[in-house]
Amino acid sequence: METDVTTELYPRERVGLVREATAKAGLGAVLLTPGPDLRYVTGYDAKQLERLTCLVVPADGEPFLVVPRLELPAAQESPAGSLGLELVPWDETDDPYALVADRLPRDVGTVGLADRMWAVMALRFRGAMPGAEQTAAGAVLRELRMRKSAAEVAALREAGEAIDRVHRLVPGLLKAGRTEREVGRDIADAIIAEGHAQVDFVIVGSGPNGANPHAELSDRVIRPGEPVVVDIGGTMPSGYCSDSTRNYCVGEPPADYQAYFAVLLEAQRASCEAVRPGATPEAVDAAGRDIIAAAGHGEHFFHRTGHGIGLESHEEPYIVAGNREPLEPGMAFSIEPGIYPGPHGARIEDIVVCTEDGYEPMNTTERGLVVVD
Amino acid sequence: METDVTTELYPRERVGLVREATAKAGLGAVLLTPGPDLRYVTGYDAKQLERLTCLVVPADGEPFLVVPRLELPAAQESPAGSLGLELVPWDETDDPYALVADRLPRDVGTVGLADRMWAVMALRFRGAMPGAEQTAAGAVLRELRMRKSAAEVAALREAGEAIDRVHRLVPGLLKAGRTEREVGRDIADAIIAEGHAQVDFVIVGSGPNGANPHAELSDRVIRPGEPVVVDIGGTMPSGYCSDSTRNYCVGEPPADYQAYFAVLLEAQRASCEAVRPGATPEAVDAAGRDIIAAAGHGEHFFHRTGHGIGLESHEEPYIVAGNREPLEPGMAFSIEPGIYPGPHGARIEDIVVCTEDGYEPMNTTERGLVVVD
Repeated sequence: METDVTTELYPRERVGLVREATAKAGLGAVLLTPGPDLRYVTGYDAKQLERLTCLVVPADGEPFLVVPRLELPAAQESPAGSLGLELVPWDETDDPYALVADRLPRDVGTVGLADRMWAVMALRFRGAMPGAEQTAAGAVLRELRMRKSAAEVAALREAGEAIDRVHRLVPGLLKAGRTEREVGRDIADAIIAEGHAQVDFVIVGSGPNGANPHAELSDRVIRPGEPVVVDIGGTMPSGYCSDSTRNYCVGEPPADYQAYFAVLLEAQRASCEAVRPGATPEAVDAAGRDIIAAAGHGEHFFHRTGHGIGLESHEEPYIVAGNREPLEPGMAFSIEPGIYPGPHGARIEDIVVCTEDGYEPMNTTERGLVVVD
Repeated sequence: METDVTTELYPRERVGLVREATAKAGLGAVLLTPGPDLRYVTGYDAKQLERLTCLVVPADGEPFLVVPRLELPAAQESPAGSLGLELVPWDETDDPYALVADRLPRDVGTVGLADRMWAVMALRFRGAMPGAEQTAAGAVLRELRMRKSAAEVAALREAGEAIDRVHRLVPGLLKAGRTEREVGRDIADAIIAEGHAQVDFVIVGSGPNGANPHAELSDRVIRPGEPVVVDIGGTMPSGYCSDSTRNYCVGEPPADYQAYFAVLLEAQRASCEAVRPGATPEAVDAAGRDIIAAAGHGEHFFHRTGHGIGLESHEEPYIVAGNREPLEPGMAFSIEPGIYPGPHGARIEDIVVCTEDGYEPMNTTERGLVVVD
């Protein structure tokens, strides 16, 4: 079963697709070190270490995976081990950058580097291939990674269900008198207990901290009548990420909060409903932003509407002014407008996938304010 | 108290020292994105995100920290907020790379990039500063980071004591009939319970898996008489890392194992005792390796003897053939020879710090085989 799921999520043909895309982009090769690009192409969730692991996909020629000899068993056992790729181990006193350079043509032209490759590795490759131009491989990979397959959408749905189960536990964890940190720790445990492999972030922004979109967990004690922004996410064993924000209050919130929360709810729905093939991210952003601005809260919504999600919790497409690349079915991203007037704030966030005729939300818990007794 | 500890570990003068080192190295500036270099210099444990956060230290001019406006409160609250650094926030539709370029002289010359900066950011900086050469900032930072202060050694000692407490719990967790994964999960919980902020790795290599130095946790059931290699480490709230390997056996191990384990114990001690100011990492490596080779196991020890440790679990200096840069007091690194003849293997690892006249081990648990009933 495990193997079937892996094959569906990380199909064998990806290496070939990357090779075609590399050639089409006019690159001589792409070099993918451990990270989301390497995992996307091979299924190999390799560790990023100082010893070079690198999938080399030449536009013209056979791809190969360079691995430290110590990691050879892990690479062989990983999904990358069954792709028919040549594995090229290197020893402790070898220079793996020279090894890659020697196997590529001298006139390789431009090479694409994994976006998250460490700069020190990019610079070593530059030294080993002085004639090659370097560019970001993301330009090649994004075209593939942005359009999720049915299996990827299923993985995002599974991640969404897992984080939704955590949100359903939050009312039982939030009590006046507890600190953000105490609640946050329980949420982190629940993120793992509900099926994630890793906790990516836990924001519990109570009262004034809710007005800071990226608040850190603090020792602030949660008080009755204070709205609390809970923005949480993790990475599933599949590699795919969850991310959802909901709003809670221990007891009744202030009247001014209730007024702008109603605006936010309408704005979030408007941005979701603007999602369809052909719509631009800019238009999706504007759909909600205009409602918030019309209500006089334009200056209190000072971040983009959303970010793509998949093997990274933030990836393309970004739902932001200036992004006019039309949406297509399979694109997955957050819709998360916020209003932060202080001394509290609110944000509502769903992950949605663009479908043939609209959108499918990956999160289905109550979007309205959840009042906890 | 917290503040005092932070100031001692991350003293205010670091930014100035980096500036001096930048000038001395002939660089025009260093650019430090989130990661161990930024934390070392400012104490700011910033998240690595797609939005650029970057400390810019010009050789000539005032340093400044570029931050996404969303992260401004976090930066202000972090130790970096009290260094008197100018914080330069940027908004969602700004180009932060152009912002950095505009504040640096046009003829900045060579800029040093944090070793772990994402390649996509390095390439954006290249585009924004087409006249600048790029090099690894590690060459500048390593000279500072390699020589630990007394406060850093104290932080490594604290990390060592924490991981030692975990090793003392291992005999209670290892039982024939349990799987590596079950034992590994309990160890991961203990790593956190004993004071680490994060689990970095847990290797429980039983029987044949002990012959693979980087074995992944598996569902293999541990059987009586099988040696088990336990290599574990984490990151403390201070930012400093632990790493220690010990060897266990449920019941009596095979006679051949006992024979080579005795050689390994002697070799590990010999490498430790070779540590002193002026000794080369190469000589430290050779001290143990020669003993292992003389016993006929040269080919069964196929990795370097060790790696530096501090804010990264693997950093300079590497204890490997070819590294002839003399050790100095304050350098901290692992001494971890192994013998892997199969169908089992062993490795003994301590973190040691080079002192004025020898070494101080950060780990003090039993190095000999621990037989569990």
